[in-house]
Amino acid sequence: MVDRRSAACLAVGSELLGERWLDTNSLLVTRSLARCGVVVVEKRVVGDDAGAIARAVTELLRHVDLVVVTGGLGPTADDVTRDGVAMALGRGLGHSCEAEQWIRERYAALKREMPPLAQVMASMVDGARAVHNSKGSAPGMVIEVGERLLVVFPGVPWEMEAMLERDLEPELARRWPGGRRAVRTLLLSGVIESEIEARVSHLYDRFGRENITILASPGVVRLVLSCTVAREGGAGELKAMEAAFRSVLGEDLAAVDRDSLEEAVLDQLRRAGATLATAESCTGGLLSARLTEVAGASDVLLGGIVCYSNRAKEELLGVPHELLVAHGAVSEEVARAMAGGARERLGTDWGVGITGIAGPAGGTADKPVGLVHWAVAGPGGVWHRERVFAGGRAATRQWSANAALDLLRRVHQGLDQGARAT
Amino acid sequence: MVDRRSAACLAVGSELLGERWLDTNSLLVTRSLARCGVVVVEKRVVGDDAGAIARAVTELLRHVDLVVVTGGLGPTADDVTRDGVAMALGRGLGHSCEAEQWIRERYAALKREMPPLAQVMASMVDGARAVHNSKGSAPGMVIEVGERLLVVFPGVPWEMEAMLERDLEPELARRWPGGRRAVRTLLLSGVIESEIEARVSHLYDRFGRENITILASPGVVRLVLSCTVAREGGAGELKAMEAAFRSVLGEDLAAVDRDSLEEAVLDQLRRAGATLATAESCTGGLLSARLTEVAGASDVLLGGIVCYSNRAKEELLGVPHELLVAHGAVSEEVARAMAGGARERLGTDWGVGITGIAGPAGGTADKPVGLVHWAVAGPGGVWHRERVFAGGRAATRQWSANAALDLLRRVHQGLDQGARAT
Repeated sequence: MVDRRSAACLAVGSELLGERWLDTNSLLVTRSLARCGVVVVEKRVVGDDAGAIARAVTELLRHVDLVVVTGGLGPTADDVTRDGVAMALGRGLGHSCEAEQWIRERYAALKREMPPLAQVMASMVDGARAVHNSKGSAPGMVIEVGERLLVVFPGVPWEMEAMLERDLEPELARRWPGGRRAVRTLLLSGVIESEIEARVSHLYDRFGRENITILASPGVVRLVLSCTVAREGGAGELKAMEAAFRSVLGEDLAAVDRDSLEEAVLDQLRRAGATLATAESCTGGLLSARLTEVAGASDVLLGGIVCYSNRAKEELLGVPHELLVAHGAVSEEVARAMAGGARERLGTDWGVGITGIAGPAGGTADKPVGLVHWAVAGPGGVWHRERVFAGGRAATRQWSANAALDLLRRVHQGLDQGARAT
Repeated sequence: MVDRRSAACLAVGSELLGERWLDTNSLLVTRSLARCGVVVVEKRVVGDDAGAIARAVTELLRHVDLVVVTGGLGPTADDVTRDGVAMALGRGLGHSCEAEQWIRERYAALKREMPPLAQVMASMVDGARAVHNSKGSAPGMVIEVGERLLVVFPGVPWEMEAMLERDLEPELARRWPGGRRAVRTLLLSGVIESEIEARVSHLYDRFGRENITILASPGVVRLVLSCTVAREGGAGELKAMEAAFRSVLGEDLAAVDRDSLEEAVLDQLRRAGATLATAESCTGGLLSARLTEVAGASDVLLGGIVCYSNRAKEELLGVPHELLVAHGAVSEEVARAMAGGARERLGTDWGVGITGIAGPAGGTADKPVGLVHWAVAGPGGVWHRERVFAGGRAATRQWSANAALDLLRRVHQGLDQGARAT
């Protein structure tokens, strides 16, 4: 293990404190720093307020090795990051002729006169090294504060990203040679978080609690494994971690380093040359929408049917009228008929059917809100599962879509004969 | 103007410090607090580390009236928010029988045994009031710290959101009566942000720039009008603002105080007793998924067809083979046939068809990536529009779904005869 440096991100901008916008720059900073073996331990957002910026910088410099501030370096009145940083350090601001020259060149390249207002962007905190901005006009600053480092970059994502790569990463490699961070994400489906926690907790001591993160969403659990490795080679420990977790997770592991369960299932079917059709009632198209969010999904998914009414189930999927009358639309029988109907009507190898009561209304004593039946029809038969999901309409719909994908991936791999009938 | 209280959001979770996830809960907290006249002045994220949580809570309580902490209240070893908060306040943790009872009831409702691990969620900071979690198992806490308030809620968004609305908002209204922020949201479709900005900018001086926010997403623009008013009555200024904006926006105004365009369109059709069916190619079910996200959508939406292949277009929608050969799947003719086919096959009053090239692959010189055709079929004919959308696959799909909803709302209101043919 190599010693890990710590960092914090501070985003400046009153718009980032409203109801709509989030600080996404921190993701770019985190990724860049990970390449240098520096780990982000805190993020903050403050408004365009020099006092708030100064307080945040002061507090953060007390407990991390590196603070990366983004935003508030433009030429307008609400750009006060320079003042806030100077205030925090108790230093003055001085004009940098080098920075002014860069700004002039930038305007010249755009065939525009440099407005007098833009001069302020050449103002640098005393002792700062000016950082050239190859994609915009506001230069950045790298400031040594004792053993610590304070970096101030503009908030425009592509400007900041270029400065991270071209300036900060080489600077950090020089300054703190040693480690980088390697990460592997194990994607699990058909399990719940607490179950996984119980199964893997004996591995915490062996690999370090801080190197293992469990992320749960309805129907999908992600295990993120990470370790700091030497700059050259050294992925051995991560491989050992992955192997240890794999042996515990077995069939519940759906994919490694994949963005989503739908991407993993599409890949699995694509490798087998198999095609898929969906029949959705309570999910109303959510499953097909998620599948088609993945570029290239059309290789596998030929189509789907959203049957929000009994008529649609009968006419578009061929679900027998008697079945709907005898068992109701939310039943094992109808889920099976939907999966089979989708497969048949679209001429695919596999069909998935989902029917349930997403709520908030529509529940009964027998069939409560959250009850969902799902089925997978394939070359060897039709498989079915059911469950009552909690958490409301949106969560039930996500649970249902993931449960159906999970059953499909297991059945297609020959893992879930227990659920079979018909 | 009434004095405004300040707040900070603290999100706890090591996954929120990685390269993938952002703290989105803070947006829900910000919106909820705005309704109470409380303004968020800082946001922070720290990992699952009791010391880091304690330091953040301590620092924030020094300079804001209210700190809202989310996340880290679950039952697993990395859920350490309880410990961090207790550490910050120098208080102990005690078992709450009331909270345990809630947790037991939660497991009982799911027909599952409460695991011993779950006990820890009933552990409360001394002096805290336990807050019931109606959508999940981990209770929250409201803690008085002198004049200030510390609120600790679980990180699951829908759990937290319900607790904000049902518990925190009434609590804040009692505690800090006086000002609240009255807000009205005008939802516009079929327009772009810069156009709207130009049309409304003359109203900024009259009502105050800080009281007007324009939020743009692909195909939908929201104008958020707000003013601080006394708790009782006083909505007069907001009414005047709304009237002034309405007169400028005209037919582009789709709805007032609605969460989404799909909700507005469903309401519009429901009021007319009309039914709807969808036929989706490039959006792959996104439109029907969004429509069915709205509770009660089944009154209006009877079903949909995702025709990701030509076979599906022909067999499920009756799009003539010759039309597909002559014009290609992405064409005005096919969009019209899809809308008509959906209407006919599902026996609805209205049908919507969307076909396009979402990308990243599949574009040609004639039909570039981003080209989308959409059509609406109704009692009086079939209406069509087309456009090349920019911004990539996900944005193009959202644009397309919103464009189709916009055409439907206009045609149904008799506003868009210009697009008609057939």
